[in-house]
Amino acid sequence: MMKTIVLNSRPKGKPTSSDFKCITEDIELTLQKGEILLEAAYVSVDPYLRGRMSDAKSYIPPFELHRPIQSGVVAKVIASKNVVFEVGDFVSGMLDWKTKQVSIGAGLLKVDASKAPLSTYLGILGMTGLTAYLGLNKIGKPKAGETLVVSGAAGAVGSVVGQIAKILGLHVIGIAGTDEKIDMLKDKFGFDAGINYKTSKNIKEDIAKAAPNGVDIYFDNVGGPISDAVLFNINRFARIVVCGAISVYNNTELPKSISVQPFLVKNSALMQGFIVSNYVDEFPEAMQHLSGWLAEGKLTYTETIVDGFENIPNAFIDLFDGKNKGKMVVKI
Amino acid sequence: MMKTIVLNSRPKGKPTSSDFKCITEDIELTLQKGEILLEAAYVSVDPYLRGRMSDAKSYIPPFELHRPIQSGVVAKVIASKNVVFEVGDFVSGMLDWKTKQVSIGAGLLKVDASKAPLSTYLGILGMTGLTAYLGLNKIGKPKAGETLVVSGAAGAVGSVVGQIAKILGLHVIGIAGTDEKIDMLKDKFGFDAGINYKTSKNIKEDIAKAAPNGVDIYFDNVGGPISDAVLFNINRFARIVVCGAISVYNNTELPKSISVQPFLVKNSALMQGFIVSNYVDEFPEAMQHLSGWLAEGKLTYTETIVDGFENIPNAFIDLFDGKNKGKMVVKI
Repeated sequence: MMKTIVLNSRPKGKPTSSDFKCITEDIELTLQKGEILLEAAYVSVDPYLRGRMSDAKSYIPPFELHRPIQSGVVAKVIASKNVVFEVGDFVSGMLDWKTKQVSIGAGLLKVDASKAPLSTYLGILGMTGLTAYLGLNKIGKPKAGETLVVSGAAGAVGSVVGQIAKILGLHVIGIAGTDEKIDMLKDKFGFDAGINYKTSKNIKEDIAKAAPNGVDIYFDNVGGPISDAVLFNINRFARIVVCGAISVYNNTELPKSISVQPFLVKNSALMQGFIVSNYVDEFPEAMQHLSGWLAEGKLTYTETIVDGFENIPNAFIDLFDGKNKGKMVVKI
Repeated sequence: MMKTIVLNSRPKGKPTSSDFKCITEDIELTLQKGEILLEAAYVSVDPYLRGRMSDAKSYIPPFELHRPIQSGVVAKVIASKNVVFEVGDFVSGMLDWKTKQVSIGAGLLKVDASKAPLSTYLGILGMTGLTAYLGLNKIGKPKAGETLVVSGAAGAVGSVVGQIAKILGLHVIGIAGTDEKIDMLKDKFGFDAGINYKTSKNIKEDIAKAAPNGVDIYFDNVGGPISDAVLFNINRFARIVVCGAISVYNNTELPKSISVQPFLVKNSALMQGFIVSNYVDEFPEAMQHLSGWLAEGKLTYTETIVDGFENIPNAFIDLFDGKNKGKMVVKI
């Protein structure tokens, strides 16, 4: 039996389980020359997928209705008519939300299950780690002694951003939504300070207190009022890495914020949208640093692992309530 | 008799003439060794001065209450105890709003009245031209064939930005507030298209029509709803030069706009605040291009010249109603 999750309807506001449909089919998948048969092991759920569920113009085409959703997947090769891949190999890449599927192997990377847990190839050694490393370095351009604020700090990307910034000698402040997450940022990930935006009486002032020298880099995963509050604290020549805007992805009306222009002019500050796929040429160098730091124990990670193929949609929906700590993956 | 204009009160919202005070004093100015006596010839009024009239933290300190306001001034040396400057020389630099003043010459540039009209050293051959040239090139990074939109297009900076972009082979669209200005953009400055934001029924759609290939560079002098409308039309890897935000400088409450973050992420776009004084090292090269193009007739300009020292405040206030075409200067 083969299962597939398709986009059943385009979400209006926050996605609900009825926007997805799990289809069970009893079909035999056969291979042509050059093809491999894959069995999903881990499926990544990520906030950016929300964008592809709308049909607005974007940097990647929207998902089609009634067709499988795709995301980062680690899969096992269970049959092969392709000389590059052997039965038993594990691969990672953008694949359909299917328990089994046929591929010609294009765009798939072999991953080594003996070197790191398979799920990390969707997280700290996958797009998550690459996004954190490259967003921070290519746009943030960190310098030792500077102050960095990261929002969505307990999320997959945020927790890695903060750790890399600490490795590079920055003062690091994380913003997250529970005291438990704040404790994790400081105790597990070595952040200098954390702000719980849900209990803070004045985020703007709490940032000012935690960043007495002002904010040089803001790594923005959330957008909305939290990002507004950071703007009041930026320094001259500040860099704002706009990596995501999870707080507004589900808005049905165009979200409003304070006007950023006066802040950018006053501070000669920069704000730039970051998409990891623009930096493919830099992946090998980034991976070298990430795996090196991971092996040295300088970098650690948290995962939220949900069990069962049919739970993929709910795991995805839970992202918008911040139910994950670190990278959210589904084990098949 | 010597006249001085001081900041009488910090403007609330749009500046009014009572925020300024003209003081007449009957004093003899005497020179120490190294000093020169200057008589103002032309005084520049610029939207950014509004920022210095508030006491908010910014890249330059605010003007002090009851002290002279400063801006770009072209002045004549009428007495000199400084070997560098001779009586009869003209200089430009940041000087007080005074009919006469003493200076040690620091930061003053000699300007050549025989090469270009004196007022141009406050405009196209001064900060205005440098702002247009350096903002466009350093942040906008224009490439032939791309599309540029400039707001405040009939203003001092905007009209030069558009002309330089045309010299560099771009498709240029200007946004301004009267049909007369739109005609000037096209007829005098060679813009490809103009949009009157006051009569447009849908600025967003009018931009889409004028920019069928989308917008690669947006040179933003205004902020507010016009800038929001441009965002809907930006291309992947677009660059937004945030040079000014005249539409919101007088807001008494924090201005709100649509959230820029989702637009920046979707398009991997960049938005950066520009202040010309960060690029002092590049002034000589920029001046060479500007004066060369001016001499060749590739660049032209418009000035609005107001007469009389006491009219400086009103000339400044008129900027916010768009009463100027091109550079606004006051002839003393």
